[in-house]
Amino acid sequence: MSEIFKEFITQLVIIEEQDLNKIIANFKHQKVKRNAIILSQGEICTHFYFLITGCVRTYYITKEGQEKTRLISFGDNPVTALTSFITQKPSVEFIDALEDSELLSMSQADFFRFTNEVPGWATFYQKMLEFAFTFQNNRIEDLVTLSAKERYEKLLKERPHYIQRLSNRIVATYLDISQETLSRIKSK
Amino acid sequence: MSEIFKEFITQLVIIEEQDLNKIIANFKHQKVKRNAIILSQGEICTHFYFLITGCVRTYYITKEGQEKTRLISFGDNPVTALTSFITQKPSVEFIDALEDSELLSMSQADFFRFTNEVPGWATFYQKMLEFAFTFQNNRIEDLVTLSAKERYEKLLKERPHYIQRLSNRIVATYLDISQETLSRIKSK
Repeated sequence: MSEIFKEFITQLVIIEEQDLNKIIANFKHQKVKRNAIILSQGEICTHFYFLITGCVRTYYITKEGQEKTRLISFGDNPVTALTSFITQKPSVEFIDALEDSELLSMSQADFFRFTNEVPGWATFYQKMLEFAFTFQNNRIEDLVTLSAKERYEKLLKERPHYIQRLSNRIVATYLDISQETLSRIKSK
Repeated sequence: MSEIFKEFITQLVIIEEQDLNKIIANFKHQKVKRNAIILSQGEICTHFYFLITGCVRTYYITKEGQEKTRLISFGDNPVTALTSFITQKPSVEFIDALEDSELLSMSQADFFRFTNEVPGWATFYQKMLEFAFTFQNNRIEDLVTLSAKERYEKLLKERPHYIQRLSNRIVATYLDISQETLSRIKSK
């Protein structure tokens, strides 16, 4: 189980085997059911989560009651509400499970203790932040530079499993379009 | 001149004086005129920029030709097109000077050489990334959870100098509203 996570880390950074084992030993294994809320809006994200299998997403609800999905993971990825994790202020985002899922989690205190103690872990965190920022920025760029149809086509090309495994409702919130628009684009 | 930058760094991280001096010595001082384009869309951001005085912003142009301003700085802040700086792929963002400005710049290669050599500089980069991500996320949250009027009122309360020093056109692109809507809100 933790082998998947180990491989994820060692593909990104150089870290000594004994340091890595010590860090991994501090992660807890956790199973959650489909539709489980892992973090609610208003709660502080006190843990770093890595999704092993299943499907988890982070999203907000706008003041008009619309869901906006920021990130979807089908495993082998961190799924933390990073802003709240960094600032330790209440999260604007929810994290929920779209399928039965298995996660590894580590407390924020342990996580940052290791970034101080283990240089490779600090670099791992740096890579996470770089990925999170560039991913977020690319998402914004897509939203402002591509039409709804172009966003759908890009998703279909780059991440076809999103469209196969997720409901139309979730895909629509990810593309920031209405379900009606999504149905119309798909039918063409 | 570089004292401002030194202070900015040492307020964030612990770094040895001689390491800091070595890093600072690798920054180049640069003056740009109002309206100068520091980075164009399609160019690779090969330098890390720190704004000393003046006013610089990063923005995109949507496919409909609308400007969207991501970040505005009035000095004492990094003003890098971070996605392109990290990935070394062409930038979607422009960087331009809204006032005559003075910057410090360092090549991407030197920047990352120092993150490897100097632990305090790696931590400085980590803090930059944390700030960039949480700032970006807060901006998105504001866009999806606040009305145009609420965004204006928040800016007026938290950053009144934006409204005093910037043209209506720039403030409108920062708040992601039309100039007409901005004028209507201001007149109330």
